[in-house]
Amino acid sequence: MMPTAPKIRLLTGFEATRAFIEARPLLDEYEATPALRASIERLFGEALTPDQVVERILREVRAQGDEAVRRYAALIEGAPLDELRVSEERIEQAWERTLPELRDALQTCADRIRAFHEKQPVTSWLDWDTTGSALGQMILPLERVGIYAPNGRAPYPSSLLMAAIPAQVAGVHEVVVATPPRDGELSDVILAAAHIAGVREIYPLGGAVAVGALAYGTASIPGVDKILGPGNLFVVLAKRRVYGVVGIDQLPGPTETLLLADESADPAWLAADMLAQAEHDPMATAMLITTSQHLAQVVRREVATQMPTLSRREVIAESLASRGAIAVVGSSDEALELANLFAPEHLCLLLRDPWQWVGKVRHAGGVFVGEYASEALGDYAVGPTHVMPTGRTARFSSPLQVWDFVKITSVFGPSAEQARDLTGAAVTVAEAEGLTAHAAAMRKRFQEGERR
Amino acid sequence: MMPTAPKIRLLTGFEATRAFIEARPLLDEYEATPALRASIERLFGEALTPDQVVERILREVRAQGDEAVRRYAALIEGAPLDELRVSEERIEQAWERTLPELRDALQTCADRIRAFHEKQPVTSWLDWDTTGSALGQMILPLERVGIYAPNGRAPYPSSLLMAAIPAQVAGVHEVVVATPPRDGELSDVILAAAHIAGVREIYPLGGAVAVGALAYGTASIPGVDKILGPGNLFVVLAKRRVYGVVGIDQLPGPTETLLLADESADPAWLAADMLAQAEHDPMATAMLITTSQHLAQVVRREVATQMPTLSRREVIAESLASRGAIAVVGSSDEALELANLFAPEHLCLLLRDPWQWVGKVRHAGGVFVGEYASEALGDYAVGPTHVMPTGRTARFSSPLQVWDFVKITSVFGPSAEQARDLTGAAVTVAEAEGLTAHAAAMRKRFQEGERR
Repeated sequence: MMPTAPKIRLLTGFEATRAFIEARPLLDEYEATPALRASIERLFGEALTPDQVVERILREVRAQGDEAVRRYAALIEGAPLDELRVSEERIEQAWERTLPELRDALQTCADRIRAFHEKQPVTSWLDWDTTGSALGQMILPLERVGIYAPNGRAPYPSSLLMAAIPAQVAGVHEVVVATPPRDGELSDVILAAAHIAGVREIYPLGGAVAVGALAYGTASIPGVDKILGPGNLFVVLAKRRVYGVVGIDQLPGPTETLLLADESADPAWLAADMLAQAEHDPMATAMLITTSQHLAQVVRREVATQMPTLSRREVIAESLASRGAIAVVGSSDEALELANLFAPEHLCLLLRDPWQWVGKVRHAGGVFVGEYASEALGDYAVGPTHVMPTGRTARFSSPLQVWDFVKITSVFGPSAEQARDLTGAAVTVAEAEGLTAHAAAMRKRFQEGERR
Repeated sequence: MMPTAPKIRLLTGFEATRAFIEARPLLDEYEATPALRASIERLFGEALTPDQVVERILREVRAQGDEAVRRYAALIEGAPLDELRVSEERIEQAWERTLPELRDALQTCADRIRAFHEKQPVTSWLDWDTTGSALGQMILPLERVGIYAPNGRAPYPSSLLMAAIPAQVAGVHEVVVATPPRDGELSDVILAAAHIAGVREIYPLGGAVAVGALAYGTASIPGVDKILGPGNLFVVLAKRRVYGVVGIDQLPGPTETLLLADESADPAWLAADMLAQAEHDPMATAMLITTSQHLAQVVRREVATQMPTLSRREVIAESLASRGAIAVVGSSDEALELANLFAPEHLCLLLRDPWQWVGKVRHAGGVFVGEYASEALGDYAVGPTHVMPTGRTARFSSPLQVWDFVKITSVFGPSAEQARDLTGAAVTVAEAEGLTAHAAAMRKRFQEGERR
């Protein structure tokens, strides 16, 4: 096999690196590829945008329920659905077919994910004052959530574990999964992961059909309260549209890893980490920012050396060429500043004394501290979820975790004495807002002649 | 003034009450009123839907920045904008014009809101194991948030406090406010509330123009990371569309109060609470579910008696007639079951021993415990925010609170020993997913001949 030197852009200096980072598209600026547009036109008989496809599917699933679900599933998969819900037998069969080593590996990952999320502090609280007033927040688990487990480019059983287990730790009553067939077949390994996670309610649906069925419910598929998990463009567009009817977790875009390294880092490991990131998807971003010109050169050569042996080298070459970069900057402080501008899904610190830099991170889905914290290991077995914010959304959103599966109810329990004390101020503001019935309702509690 | 008996529907029995609750529209089923449609056609010269108006405004604000902001603000307000940012002088002037009693009242409310949110446990954590691995979650405040302060039917300075103060407690670096003029004038009392909250960056913008400017940023208005706070239909539609570019808190719909009462409750207080709720908006829901037929009758008479003296009696009559209800059911357990089906923004327990029922609440934005916990008092001065989930979204979302203003970064810090222990399982799953470069990146750390 001929080693083909992958194309990867080299950037020099803070300003050039900043310009590259700032030019990255936001989530809603991705365009449908020509192949996707052609496939839509073939299936729907007209040149719809992906968002128009999603709008139509959601509208019809909402109005027509199972009938529309079956029709669109057949159209998209090219074959009619056998069953709207995966049978117990099919799940058992998948489990039986799973090799013991893989079963054990999935169980190890599941145990780690559970242990991590069980440590997350998520508790109700109530605070009394001396007048007997009690105020606080009651935390309740969601009742029924739907998790999307993609099965497109590859089956991702790990994603199912990464979402279903935090849901269970939160105490969610019913966790259901939607996962599409590929070439007419569900993924055994995704079903095996569902088995390990204790999920028995699985719908063989994908894309906007799955999101619509879970959001609105049909005769056969009871609706959920929230839809979570990664997915392709159609899943993301559909989640945005059903938000408000149900909750959603986030709008995931293409995955990103930003590696920061100084000359203490091992270039072969850095190259391996870039290749791992790049194999996800042609739209994945693998980027290294380093203070060492020498390291940059060696990493680049290592990428060329390691790549030819990898099974997904074509995807890797495409993503490195279109979105990858190796940048050399003047200091680790500059590198951190650029990382905060990037707000990457994964930020890996292969710097000397890496912990000293953690406190300077302002925006990242996850920070991977030190050379043994490979992003690949974090994708499976460290414990925190791998479902993390992308596309600069780490500025305002969080990895999937227990808070995604609970909600807060505020508890207002003022005593009569506290209510009396506060009524004057509250009435004054209510009247300034013109809400005189609010003022009257508060005053009525303390009027002469009232029974207390 | 002639007391007009308000129309309010009476429901008897669990099933009739359930049918009424289930027939409530979801957030995305509200239709534009004829008046709104006429006003759109007058302003835009064509019969656009509200969502089409929002799409157009957002697109142009994104592409053209300040120019589009000025153009649409002038179109909607009917007069050109004086300035794109409210001057310090204007804020000072508003403060000077605010009566001392109102200043003090706003300060009292602000102090209560701050004290409540300071008690909310929101902390980073890091957990070490015996191998030196450290895993945890780093909680960081958002850097820059935009709060929408409505000034439509009434100015709501309280809403500004209810959102800006939790932001400050969370440690948000920059809190900015958008609030539209009404009849060409900003609200003094909203500016006074901003003054108390320490907000000095205020944009005199409303609706989709405000949301677009804050989401995308313009030459004069730096973009924010998240947009929060209640607003009208255009604000809600715009927030849904910009979600992903920025974060949003929730999609608020019309406000709702559900009162549960047994014969121990004071019917005059219940009537006052229903009237207070109904005065918000013709779309507001005020509903009472009681076990006492007698109480239901007396409350209805009390509503008729108290209403004529209230300044907003026309709004009240409209909302009670269209969306209000008094229901009589067989037991307090039935009432609670219906409340959970409703998932109301405000749930008021005017039941004997009210605390015993709190643990049975499964879905509510806030629970108001006992007769002194009037919803009106909670709107201003108790401490928890009044920005709460409506339209059944309490099934999956929470009142505004400190978690809305922070985000989590997962910290992955496995030691070499832990990484070695986990690599086998992680490699097995990676290979099952076909991600061989992931497997290679993990293995590389522990290959013979590697430097460690």
